Amino acid sequence: MSSDFQVPPLTELRQRLSAKWQTFPHDVLPLPVAEMDFPLAEPVAAALHQAIRRSDTGYAAPTADLAEAVAGYARRTWDWSVDPDGVHTVADVGIGIVETLRRIVAPGDKVVISPPVYEPFSWWVHEVGAHVVEAPLTEAPSGDSTARGPRLDLTALERAFADGARAYLLCSPHNPLGLVHPREDLVALAELADEHGVFVLADEIHAPLVLTGAQFVPFLSVSQEARRRGFSFLSASKGWNLAGLKAAAIITADPAPKRYVERMSPHRLYRTGHLGVIATVAAFNDADAWLAEVLDVLDHNRTLLAELLDKNLPAARYTPPQASFLAWIDFRALGWGDDPAAHILGAAKVALNSGHRYGFPGFARLNFGCAPETLTEAVVRIAESC
Amino acid sequence: MSSDFQVPPLTELRQRLSAKWQTFPHDVLPLPVAEMDFPLAEPVAAALHQAIRRSDTGYAAPTADLAEAVAGYARRTWDWSVDPDGVHTVADVGIGIVETLRRIVAPGDKVVISPPVYEPFSWWVHEVGAHVVEAPLTEAPSGDSTARGPRLDLTALERAFADGARAYLLCSPHNPLGLVHPREDLVALAELADEHGVFVLADEIHAPLVLTGAQFVPFLSVSQEARRRGFSFLSASKGWNLAGLKAAAIITADPAPKRYVERMSPHRLYRTGHLGVIATVAAFNDADAWLAEVLDVLDHNRTLLAELLDKNLPAARYTPPQASFLAWIDFRALGWGDDPAAHILGAAKVALNSGHRYGFPGFARLNFGCAPETLTEAVVRIAESC
Ligand SMILES: Cc1ncc(COP(=O)(O)O)c(C=O)c1O
Ligand SMILES: Cc1ncc(COP(=O)(O)O)c(C=O)c1O
Repeated sequence: MSSDFQVPPLTELRQRLSAKWQTFPHDVLPLPVAEMDFPLAEPVAAALHQAIRRSDTGYAAPTADLAEAVAGYARRTWDWSVDPDGVHTVADVGIGIVETLRRIVAPGDKVVISPPVYEPFSWWVHEVGAHVVEAPLTEAPSGDSTARGPRLDLTALERAFADGARAYLLCSPHNPLGLVHPREDLVALAELADEHGVFVLADEIHAPLVLTGAQFVPFLSVSQEARRRGFSFLSASKGWNLAGLKAAAIITADPAPKRYVERMSPHRLYRTGHLGVIATVAAFNDADAWLAEVLDVLDHNRTLLAELLDKNLPAARYTPPQASFLAWIDFRALGWGDDPAAHILGAAKVALNSGHRYGFPGFARLNFGCAPETLTEAVVRIAESC
Repeated sequence: MSSDFQVPPLTELRQRLSAKWQTFPHDVLPLPVAEMDFPLAEPVAAALHQAIRRSDTGYAAPTADLAEAVAGYARRTWDWSVDPDGVHTVADVGIGIVETLRRIVAPGDKVVISPPVYEPFSWWVHEVGAHVVEAPLTEAPSGDSTARGPRLDLTALERAFADGARAYLLCSPHNPLGLVHPREDLVALAELADEHGVFVLADEIHAPLVLTGAQFVPFLSVSQEARRRGFSFLSASKGWNLAGLKAAAIITADPAPKRYVERMSPHRLYRTGHLGVIATVAAFNDADAWLAEVLDVLDHNRTLLAELLDKNLPAARYTPPQASFLAWIDFRALGWGDDPAAHILGAAKVALNSGHRYGFPGFARLNFGCAPETLTEAVVRIAESC
């Protein structure tokens, strides 16, 4: 870790008013909620301070800045050529997916998801009155998955698509497994979707956080079928820790999906956070160096966590993720019941997310977007108190 | 105007990236969009700078701060006793109204509005698949309305309610007329609503900007019937110019309306702007003095505008509003056609909002939340160039 990238001490972090730091009492070490503990990227902080000095707190404006920043970042990072005309500003990924679903599914329609997956995926489907159909990943992730690991179950997806599903919510990279989908799976998915007339909503919010060793493939880049059926949802909110500022992008690369987005409320833009747009533009344009440092810390932490668990909790099973700051841990061998997160919170005062909320009793999700010292303290506390 | 309350010069205002300042070319003087040109209240700016210094940009937290700030402000300002337990955080008033409507109306149901009214009222009704029923204000506002002026048409409202309407969108104070509804009208409205089982959604976003001479009456304070049928929508976004930060409150004062709000997506809070919450808490708690200065400027400007029009455009008709920074001007006698705002933009390079979008051809809405010099320049430019 470079020396000018200092994670603030816990006493300072506890001053934050965000959900991660205010949901639990002060004696709890919080490692749930997808927020990172790192200091803001300097260009992002500078852009925000300047906006406040300008008293620039009115409505987000219809400018091309965000679209061009997204396109520039996509080209530099993934060699993905995004047409800024197909980049549509929206408040966040959740609202983007819900508002897109409202235009492509009718109440009662079926929408497919692949558990274990970010819990709100099913809430969003319910929010528009549609039904969830599950096509789980190929193997229940068990912490000792082989190199091939869990991946999309194309047979189950084909069955669900043939059975009349209208849309599929792709999580790419896949939360909570940190799974980066290989290109051939995305190509096959796009073919199936096109064949059955299914829309693919690709939640790519964690894409900027793909770690060394894996290569992120943007869904819309894989084929004409993907572009015809696909929407991508991207934001700087995970990569640069801006989730509370409320700006994201819906990306389309074909006239048909684009028309659905254009039919959204004229308020799509006014409902977006103006400071979110300002911060997002700074993040995508000027904060590659900061992100590289974060990726180093996360790369270090995913391995450190494996070592800490080996040493202190050898019965816990965990495969270091390919992306982001989320660890999916199998505590079943420890006899802590269906909700190890609840047990750990009570006994060790360490907060994690419950795996059973993803349909996986005995599992928990840990956020290692923190200082290595905090991660160490968390695992040691769990080992000593549980 | 006090000397420490300086409106930034136009060259500085044009650096702002918000909608008001980025929608038009730089040679246009912009007086549309509900943003004010004043500098941020110092306690609000300080709270925002501190949040950024803490890198506090994660998700809004489930704390009571905003509810308590709203309750404190309501007590001090209107002697209105709000139970913080009935204050629900939401991203903005538009989303609050739409999400409330989703829970109380079915597609095809009728929702009543009173034109001329803030244009998005009808968009919001359409957004949930309901139908708009119009119960216009009692007299077409003509710029020379008498002291009794336009007000709610209780007979038309009763007819619409008896005809099966499910909800009424009350604008209080009423945009674009700056009309402050008298208590007796609100009491009568609540009785009618209760009798016919109609919900009243009271958009009170302009309430903090009620000017000398008028007294704002919170809808939920008028009667048990109002509390049983009513929802109030309040934010600091107009009063303290925070519209882009995305935080507002839905207020309920009875278990029945409260249950509808509680049924909203678990994401209601996570979709709220975290910096919006921080700024809103500072505004409602610590910025009464700043608001008093703004009210002085607006009071001055509403009279100045009457003088400027008398002198430069005597055929234009305008009654100074009782609230906020919006002037509703009747240009019909000037022969500038149905859309005087378009004519004025072309000829004088001054941007206003078109009255025909409110259903009132020949009218325009002007935002005087600016320096008196800017207001003077706007009217003189219009008089000289049109
Ligand atoms: C896969 C995934 N999608 C979406 C979100 C939430 O994004 P937003 O706050 O933009 O709705 C998260 C947050 O952790 C996530 O992990
Ligand atoms: C009466 C009224 N309601 C609502 C709004 C918009 O509020 P929000 O941005 O919170 O949706 C405005 C903005 O000018 C308004 O005048």
